[in-house]
Formats: sequence, C-alpha cells, structure tokens
Amino acid sequence: MTVRFGLVGCGVMGSDHARILRSDIAGAELVAVQDKDWGRAKRVAGDRCRIHADPEQLIVDPGVDAIVIASPDATHAPLTLAAIAAGKPVLCEKPMASNLDEARSIVDAEIAAGRQLVQIGFMRRFDPGYRAMRAAVKAGTLGNPLFLHCIHRNAVGPDYVTSDLVLANSSVHEIDISRYVLGEDHARVRVIRARSSRKAPNRQPLMMVLETMSGVVVSVEAFLDAQYGYDVQGELVCEEGTLSLDPHPPVRSRVGGSDGHAVETDWVGRFADAYRCQLRDFVAALDGGRFLGSSAWDGYVASLTAEAALRALRTGETIAVESGDRPAFYDALG
Amino acid sequence: MTVRFGLVGCGVMGSDHARILRSDIAGAELVAVQDKDWGRAKRVAGDRCRIHADPEQLIVDPGVDAIVIASPDATHAPLTLAAIAAGKPVLCEKPMASNLDEARSIVDAEIAAGRQLVQIGFMRRFDPGYRAMRAAVKAGTLGNPLFLHCIHRNAVGPDYVTSDLVLANSSVHEIDISRYVLGEDHARVRVIRARSSRKAPNRQPLMMVLETMSGVVVSVEAFLDAQYGYDVQGELVCEEGTLSLDPHPPVRSRVGGSDGHAVETDWVGRFADAYRCQLRDFVAALDGGRFLGSSAWDGYVASLTAEAALRALRTGETIAVESGDRPAFYDALG
Amino acid sequence: MTVRFGLVGCGVMGSDHARILRSDIAGAELVAVQDKDWGRAKRVAGDRCRIHADPEQLIVDPGVDAIVIASPDATHAPLTLAAIAAGKPVLCEKPMASNLDEARSIVDAEIAAGRQLVQIGFMRRFDPGYRAMRAAVKAGTLGNPLFLHCIHRNAVGPDYVTSDLVLANSSVHEIDISRYVLGEDHARVRVIRARSSRKAPNRQPLMMVLETMSGVVVSVEAFLDAQYGYDVQGELVCEEGTLSLDPHPPVRSRVGGSDGHAVETDWVGRFADAYRCQLRDFVAALDGGRFLGSSAWDGYVASLTAEAALRALRTGETIAVESGDRPAFYDALG
Amino acid sequence: MTVRFGLVGCGVMGSDHARILRSDIAGAELVAVQDKDWGRAKRVAGDRCRIHADPEQLIVDPGVDAIVIASPDATHAPLTLAAIAAGKPVLCEKPMASNLDEARSIVDAEIAAGRQLVQIGFMRRFDPGYRAMRAAVKAGTLGNPLFLHCIHRNAVGPDYVTSDLVLANSSVHEIDISRYVLGEDHARVRVIRARSSRKAPNRQPLMMVLETMSGVVVSVEAFLDAQYGYDVQGELVCEEGTLSLDPHPPVRSRVGGSDGHAVETDWVGRFADAYRCQLRDFVAALDGGRFLGSSAWDGYVASLTAEAALRALRTGETIAVESGDRPAFYDALG
Repeated sequence: MTVRFGLVGCGVMGSDHARILRSDIAGAELVAVQDKDWGRAKRVAGDRCRIHADPEQLIVDPGVDAIVIASPDATHAPLTLAAIAAGKPVLCEKPMASNLDEARSIVDAEIAAGRQLVQIGFMRRFDPGYRAMRAAVKAGTLGNPLFLHCIHRNAVGPDYVTSDLVLANSSVHEIDISRYVLGEDHARVRVIRARSSRKAPNRQPLMMVLETMSGVVVSVEAFLDAQYGYDVQGELVCEEGTLSLDPHPPVRSRVGGSDGHAVETDWVGRFADAYRCQLRDFVAALDGGRFLGSSAWDGYVASLTAEAALRALRTGETIAVESGDRPAFYDALG
Repeated sequence: MTVRFGLVGCGVMGSDHARILRSDIAGAELVAVQDKDWGRAKRVAGDRCRIHADPEQLIVDPGVDAIVIASPDATHAPLTLAAIAAGKPVLCEKPMASNLDEARSIVDAEIAAGRQLVQIGFMRRFDPGYRAMRAAVKAGTLGNPLFLHCIHRNAVGPDYVTSDLVLANSSVHEIDISRYVLGEDHARVRVIRARSSRKAPNRQPLMMVLETMSGVVVSVEAFLDAQYGYDVQGELVCEEGTLSLDPHPPVRSRVGGSDGHAVETDWVGRFADAYRCQLRDFVAALDGGRFLGSSAWDGYVASLTAEAALRALRTGETIAVESGDRPAFYDALG
Repeated sequence: MTVRFGLVGCGVMGSDHARILRSDIAGAELVAVQDKDWGRAKRVAGDRCRIHADPEQLIVDPGVDAIVIASPDATHAPLTLAAIAAGKPVLCEKPMASNLDEARSIVDAEIAAGRQLVQIGFMRRFDPGYRAMRAAVKAGTLGNPLFLHCIHRNAVGPDYVTSDLVLANSSVHEIDISRYVLGEDHARVRVIRARSSRKAPNRQPLMMVLETMSGVVVSVEAFLDAQYGYDVQGELVCEEGTLSLDPHPPVRSRVGGSDGHAVETDWVGRFADAYRCQLRDFVAALDGGRFLGSSAWDGYVASLTAEAALRALRTGETIAVESGDRPAFYDALG
Repeated sequence: MTVRFGLVGCGVMGSDHARILRSDIAGAELVAVQDKDWGRAKRVAGDRCRIHADPEQLIVDPGVDAIVIASPDATHAPLTLAAIAAGKPVLCEKPMASNLDEARSIVDAEIAAGRQLVQIGFMRRFDPGYRAMRAAVKAGTLGNPLFLHCIHRNAVGPDYVTSDLVLANSSVHEIDISRYVLGEDHARVRVIRARSSRKAPNRQPLMMVLETMSGVVVSVEAFLDAQYGYDVQGELVCEEGTLSLDPHPPVRSRVGGSDGHAVETDWVGRFADAYRCQLRDFVAALDGGRFLGSSAWDGYVASLTAEAALRALRTGETIAVESGDRPAFYDALG
C-alpha cells in the first residue's frame, strides 16, 4: 500500500516534511503541494508532484489520501476541519487552533465523523528519549514518578515573541509531552517571571510549575534567548531512580581548550529522528495501525492548559486546569 | 604559626573534622576535644590531645586558640556565644541556632565584640563547583544570572524528618549557596509539595522556588528518599551560557551492561574537598586572612529565609523574605 | 521510481534488512525472498512477496531490480558474480568472498561489466560518527590525522571463533572504516596477542597496529568477550584536536548507585542508524546517485589487509600490506 | 610530630612543592630552601625559612629532617645519594638519574643504608583514578586485566624535545604507572612512529606497545603537540569490565555552541590532587607509615624500561625488557 500525501504549506516545516516523505518513509508518496507563494510550492514540488492553488482543493483532490498541514497557524483549524469533512487523515502542525473554541470544534467534528483522523504535530512524542521515559512510567520500572524537570531553550528568539507567546508557542510542547510521559492531566499551574536578559528586554524567561492530578510536580524553564544554542532537556524523577534526556551529536570533540559536544542550533537537528518517526508511524497507522501521536483531544487539552498558564502568568496566582472529562470516543483509542 | 584547635562534639561530623585537621591542614593542631560520651571523645583524642568534660571549659582553655563546634544542634548557639565571649574564632556546624532570636543574638554579640569570630559550616561555599559559579557571576563572564536550578537528593532520609525539617535541614543549604553564588538576597519564596514516595509516606518531596531581589529565579528540588544515592546538582543559567556542577568519582566504569559512574552515598564523600578547604581556609583566615565562609549574618539570613519557606509550605502562599539591611559591620568584611 | 528488491538469506541480518526496507526506506519494495530454510523465508515474506527456492533464480527474476545478499558467507562471491552477470545492483553483506582470488574475481567482473553494481555491507560507513570523522579529515578542519584509536568489543563471542577469525570477521570492520575515515591505504600491520580471558581460553584478545601510507598510526583493540556489552569506540587524533565516537542510548539513568547509560548488547542496536542509512543511500544511488558505501575494490583491499594481519598474528612480524594500484575504473567513481 | 623539610630547587616544580607544604600538609614545615638562582630561592623562602647557597649543605643541615629534590635533572642522583649518606628521607623528582648506572647506584646505596629513604616523584601513583584502577586489579573486582590503554598529550612541547626525549621524559610516566596499576613488570616493548605534526616537524608522535610478564598489553600514545590542552587518559580493560580515568574541572559549561568541559593546560592542574597527596602520604610515611610512592627500585626499573623503549624506537624491533630480580630488600617493603 502506498499512501499518497498532499502537503499544505511549503515553508521551513513543510519543505522538511516533504524531504522526509521522499527519502525516509516507506509506503508514502508526495503527490500534491500547495503554498500561497507559488515559487515556494514549485521548489518543493520539483517535477514530481502537482501544485494546487488552493488548500481546500488539495484536500478534496481524489488522488490525495492523507494531508499534512504546515501552513500559517491561523489556517490550521479550518483546514483540519476540511480534512475531517473530506474523511481524510491529517497530520496538523501545532498549534491545532487559534483559540479553544476552534480546538473544541475539531474534537467535536472528529467525534461526529466516527473515526480518528487527526494527529497534532507534537513531534516530541516520537523522540526516543521521551518514549523511554513514558515506557518506564508505564512499566513502573523506577516506581511512581514524583518530578519531571523540563528545560526549553532557544538560541535567539524572534523579536515579536512576548512572554505570553513563549507559553503559547514553546511551553505548550512541555505541557503536551509531560501529559504523554506521565500519562495524566495537570491540575494546577503557576508561572514565575525571571528578570529579562539584556539580549531580549521585551520578554522574560519563565519558570512554569505544574502539578498533575496525582501530585507529580512538573517544572519548566522557558528561555528563548540562551545564545549558546537550542537545548531541550528533561529529567524524570521516580521513587527509585531518574531518567534524563541526554541527546548529543555523534562525535565529541577536543579542540581549543574544550572537550565536549556541539549544541544543536534548532529543533530541526535536535528532533530530526522525532520528525522522521512521526511520519513513519503516521503512515503505519494508516495501514491498519494506531495513531501514536497527539490526538485532537490531546491538542485541545494542551491549548486549554496553556491558557491556564497564561492566566497564571498575568495574575501571579495558582490557576486550576479544568479540562473536563475525556470523551469516551478517545478512551476507546487507548 | 600553629593554630591550636579545640573540638566540641566527636560524632560523625566531629570525628571527620578531627581527621582532616590531623592529615590535611597545614598550621593546625588538634589539642583538645569534648563529647558528652567520654568513650567517643577518647576514640577521637587517642593519646594525642586532652579531653574536657565540659564544652565551656574547653572553650576557655588557654591552650586552645580556635573552636570547632560539631555538637548537637541545640547547643550550637550557646557555645558559639561562649566562644565569642572568650574572644576565640569559632567554626560552627549549621544550623547556627534553634530559632531566629538566638541566631540574631550571635550576630549582635559578634558586632559587640568588634571583630569577626564566627563562621558557619555551610561547607558548600568551599566546593570548587560552586566557587566557579560565583566567580563567573562576579566576573560577568556569561552575563547576568537568570536562573539557578538546584537539586538536593539523599539516598534514604531518617524516619523522623518531616517535610518541615527538609526545609530547615536540607534546603537551607541551597538557600545559603544561592545567596553565595548570586551575591544577593532572596525576595520571595514558594514551596510546592510533590506526592509522597511510597518509600517514605510521612514526608513529601518539595519544590521550592525563590526569587532574588534582582529577579533571578532559584528552583530547588528537595528529595530525601531518592534511593539511588546522594546527589547534589546545580545549573546556573546566565544571559550567554550556563555552568553546571558535574562532580563524579575519578573513574568511569563499564560493567554489567552499564557505562557510567558510581553515585556518592553521602555528603562526606560528595563534599570531601569542600570540608577540607573549609578548614584550610579557616586556618588561613586566622593567620591574617579573611573568612571566606558564611558569616553569622549569612547564617542568620539563611535561617530567616528558611522560616519564610516554612510558612510558604504551610500556607501554599508566596511569602516575602524580609531580612532587613545588613549591618555595616558585615559590609566592611566584604 | 520504486526499486523492487530481492533478498537472499532470511536469517538475523536478512530479516532485519527486510524490516528496514519495509518501514524506513522511501522508494523501495521488497518483492522476493529466498532462504534455504523455507519456513524462515515464509516468515519474512508474509503474504507480501514471492518466495524463490533458488537464489540464482531470484537474481534473474525480471521483476527484481536490485539484490541484497545476506546468505551464508561462502555463497557471497558466487551470488555477487551472478548479480553482476544479471546486470543488477547488489548490496552484499561482508565478507564479500571466502578468499582473495574470489574477491579479485568480483572486482574484475564488475570492471568488465563497465558500471558499478556492487556495494559491500560495511555498514559503519553510514554511522554518523564515522561520517563526521571522515568529513573532518577531508575538510582538514583539525589538520592532518596522526592517530586513529579503535576499540571493538563484543559481549560474548561464539565458541568457534579463534584469534584468526577475530581478525577476519571483526577487525576487518576497523580495516575498512579506517581506510574510509583516513582516505588512504595501509602500509604495514603488526598484531600483538594479549593474555586470554578465562571466559574464553581458546582465543586471545588482540591489539592490531596499522600504519597508513602517510604515516597515520591506527590502533585496534579486538576483544570478543568483554561481558559488559557490545562497544565500538574510536578516536581520531589530528594536529589540532580530536574527534571521538560517543554513542549512547537516548536516556541516562541514575539508579542503584550508578549514573550512566545502558550499553548496547549487539551491533543491531549500536548501528541501527547505519543499517537504515545504508539502504536509504543505496536506493538513492540507484535513482541516479553515487554509491556511498564500500566498493568491490574496497572489499578486496579490506580482505587483503586482513590477510596481512593474519600473517602478522601468526609470525609476530611486521607485515607489509601490498594492495597494488587501484584500477582506474574505481578512481573514476570518486 | 612536625617534619622539617629542606627543598632543593625553587623553579616551577619546587615552588609548587613549597606552596603545598605550607598550605595543605599537616605536620610539615618548610625550614630551608636552596636554588642556584638566589632571587628565586628568596622568593620561595619569603621571611619564613633559611636559604642555603649549597644543596649539600642544606642536606646536612641538622635542622632539616627530610629533603625534596626539584633541581635540574642532572643533579638528582648525586643529591639523592647525599641524602642517603645523611640518613635523611628524600622525595626526588623524576628522573631519578641521568643513566642506568647512576640509578642502580642509588638502589645499592639505599640497600646498604638498610632502610627505605628514597621516593621518586612519580606523582601519578597518588592520582585517585589510577589508585582506583590498582585497587580493582588487586581485589580482582573485574577479573584479570587484559589491556591498559594510555594517552599522554601535552598542548605544546618544548622545541628541544626529540622523539627520544618523549620516551625518556613523558612515556616513563606511563611505564611507571602501568607497573603500579598492573602490579607486574614489562616483558617486551615496541615503538611505532606516527607522521609528524606540522606544528612540530622535529619530533614524531609515538605509539608504544608494552607486554607485561603475564601478557597484559599496554598501549601508550605519546603526543607532545596536541594543541587543545594537556590530556592524560587511561582505560583498564579486564575480563569483566573496564575502568577509565575521567577527570575534568568541577563545572561543565554550555556556551558558544558547545557543551563540555575546559581541558587542563598542564600537569600542575591535572594532577593537583596527586601532588598534594604525594606529600601528605610522604609525611605520613615518616611518621611511622609506609612509603606509598615509587621506590628507588621502581625508579630504576622505569629507567631501564624506558631505555629498552628507546632501543625499540631506534631499531623498529621488539625489545625485551630485562630488569632482573627485585632485591629482597624491596620485597620486604611490600
């Protein structure tokens, strides 16, 4: 079986998805692309696939079996809804929606459609480090989890990103991945502002502290201006031991008075394996398997928790996270 | 010059101080010991120094130049006051006092004595890792500090230690060392309880989050029951890079499917170098140098901050730390 | 374009190649398999591809575009020659032949065929660590290479493997990879026997020391009975710095008094990425690209050098490696 | 008891010994110094000890209990003999002598004196990493040793050092330390020259391969021009696991695209702890203990083995090491 993919959005993320589909994924073929910038679409398409002028048109193209959405954030929800309407599986980059109502409408549409079609591009769920943590929690190898310490640092953040957007764009990854690793929802959240770096006086590095329903404390440093590189770390602390992410390039160098590893410059390098496995397992899911990534419900809860964090940031208070009960539809997905 | 030391308390800590004084410190001689258990005093004394039945008597012994106090906590303040009264330099194990009033009375007595006599045994200030962090902050090598992440794990805590005592006994180390590394006082503190480990259902692992006057966020995990070993870690995050403690034994082993280092079992091994340098530099200070360790004022502020943390633990609120102005006497010490 | 693969040999290596082709390689399809054990062939084939009783038959099957040979060692050369005769690209597991004459006959047949068809399965050339080393040598980033230190340890070697076979089966990997990393042939080789481990009294751990034409010294520890795990290491020492392989699992664990990583148990885990990229790049080469792996000439030289090492082992002498000039045909491949 | 030390030679090594004696060693006092450069002697003496114009005079000074020799290499043997004649314990920097006859004469003089007086300054025997290796070998924790891989790199070697001198000055450390770790003598040695670095065209990096009496293979890379720093490494490979030296500064830094540790610039930093413990344990030995460092016999055997290595370098042959039987006098020292 070959899955014929249509790609909406041919920017940095879109063209990387195209590259992966073409070189690293068995049973997949990229047959159609779309981008509002025709030249960009042309560059990704080469002479190997057709170009649609309109994303909705690509979605209903009968020669397209599955959709990848990597277009601007505001278009994610409407296009995901269109894919559901067309009955086509869709891998949508995060964030799944611009607001909670939109996010909820995707959940509702999917439930109405009666089968799982949506996966949100929280690619970290495919990182082998986080997978090992989750496996340990599920198996109880190290006992119950007590803490999860997360660090998220970018080298240089874009100017327009405020402290608010740090939570919405960056920390939402930690919100999703901590639910994935720990297998439960958050109950409460606090956010504490650090002093600004003089490199980025318009925003503040943040410390978010979440508590899960069972009482695991999740700490998250979110710092967009670390200068030295892109660095995502994590330590899971359990009753009998800990597991830490420990990624690094394949060689260690000793040069110029220093002995160590190069730090990644961005998420494309750091999560290369995760992006690859995300698409591989998405294709496998279409071939009779199970979606292993974030569901629409997971995306909705991540957005809802990020909104609570935003309120915590603004008020300085501890804010309760109230995601409500998971619909039975998602329970059945396991 | 040889400094003649008198040691009060010959338990675990006291006998280790005796061992260090005898083998690793130039210009020091242990001439007198005291312990309420005569046999214990005898074992430490050997035939090389005299034994006093009474600690006050040891303190005023004219053949004793300087005092090390390692007796039970409740005796620390009265004995330190006695040393001040005798005009003798004293290295007192932490905590310096049982309550804030007592702690403050030591500060006042020292100021009245007109010269610095007291050093509190926060030995981490002599750990080469923390010293490197402080040096970087002072020199501004990596820009301003923004975060200090601290982890304090014991292998197996004693049964009687409640969550309250974790703050008073353990986390007070992080309170002192973060003031040392960052060179400023704390402004506020929160404490969040994690779920209990089933290994120690009577206390909870804690997450303390402090903010300094300038807005550095200090996070502290305090976990007494980590099982795998004694583990103190720290990462200082600055505007242009980070420094992490990275201690480990001198050899790495590959054996039985694992490649790594043995973890220390307690603070004696982990901070062996710090304990040694603490005494070395104390002796150097007596020979015309400057006390490099925690002053009575530092000890007082650490206790005061730990009390605020205790209130934060009990109330769940964010508590302000109000240490008041540092007396001019201590400013002059630099 | 889809490359239709035929697989000869469905044992451990063959079934792993099948798995990779099916899940991780774009543009490839496994259409036919063969194994002298029908049940094994059936298990790999599933209901997704046809089964040939005879390997020669599979090779000439007009529905098969390219061949993977993973059958017993003695069959490698005749089957590779059959693939060349059929004009079909072939990825053949090492060793390429049972003796030098056979190896040379493959080189000659390929030259006669007039185009490159053969790649030898020295998968380490696709390991990202060795690739980074080679890139540094080519770019001269760290100056000229001076030493390459290699370590090859298995957990528990099979009983039948003698010291001779260690050189032929294991160390031949280091012979090939050092030619790849350093970009030049070896001139001389010595082999020194260590005492036997009591775990394997019938063979000796070996230390092979090679010198390249330009004077780089390559040291190789070959130890089949390291017990603790499968461990392949390397350090490239250049005029201005060094690069070391530093592979490990994605998480570091602190548990039971130890802080470190699990060691791999075998080459399948250690070189998972290399095996995947080997097939990916083989397919890319068939789609108009260039073979990036070991050529038939590389395989021949590796065998010839291993024979010299064998002589060095038996005689205790320093043995010259005389590979002769590379045929112009291979120069043109670049 | 206080040991009154006299120091001969106030250069880099001598002044460092003085510093250590004064700050880090209990029970020691530096009472006299000598240097042929009076100003240098004055700077080390300060106003705290007397200065002798003549080293022999210092040795017989009745106020001096023990001698440290850190004067130019050619004076080591005559001064050590003078110390033996005076019946005074002496810690002599390596090399103990300029040639084997001189070295042997020290052994003979010490035996004639009837008690151990001489320790050679192979300080690595006090490095905690090598001590842990030796302890493992003695205890058999990991089974029998099979390999010991050693690396010795300087950042920038002095111009006058030829390949010959690399063996005599640098590799002699590895010769001594491998005898210490493995607890046995060497039987044979080979030396292989690598190409020269363009940074130091007048000498060649060397690969020395020794075999011990029981068949352990010891490999030694000796490279004086590594540029990136001073780096001494070692891996002990045993039947059931390995131990590696893993020294580094107390903090790890993430800055400027790199994550790692600073490399030491020279032996003073790398072996600071070893130099300190060497003097501490020397003093302890004088107070009724046992000398833990290299004896005169150890120094003699190291020199003899280095001479064999020199012959191996010059001839390209495998050279037997013939140290003869250890005198019963040294057996008794244990």
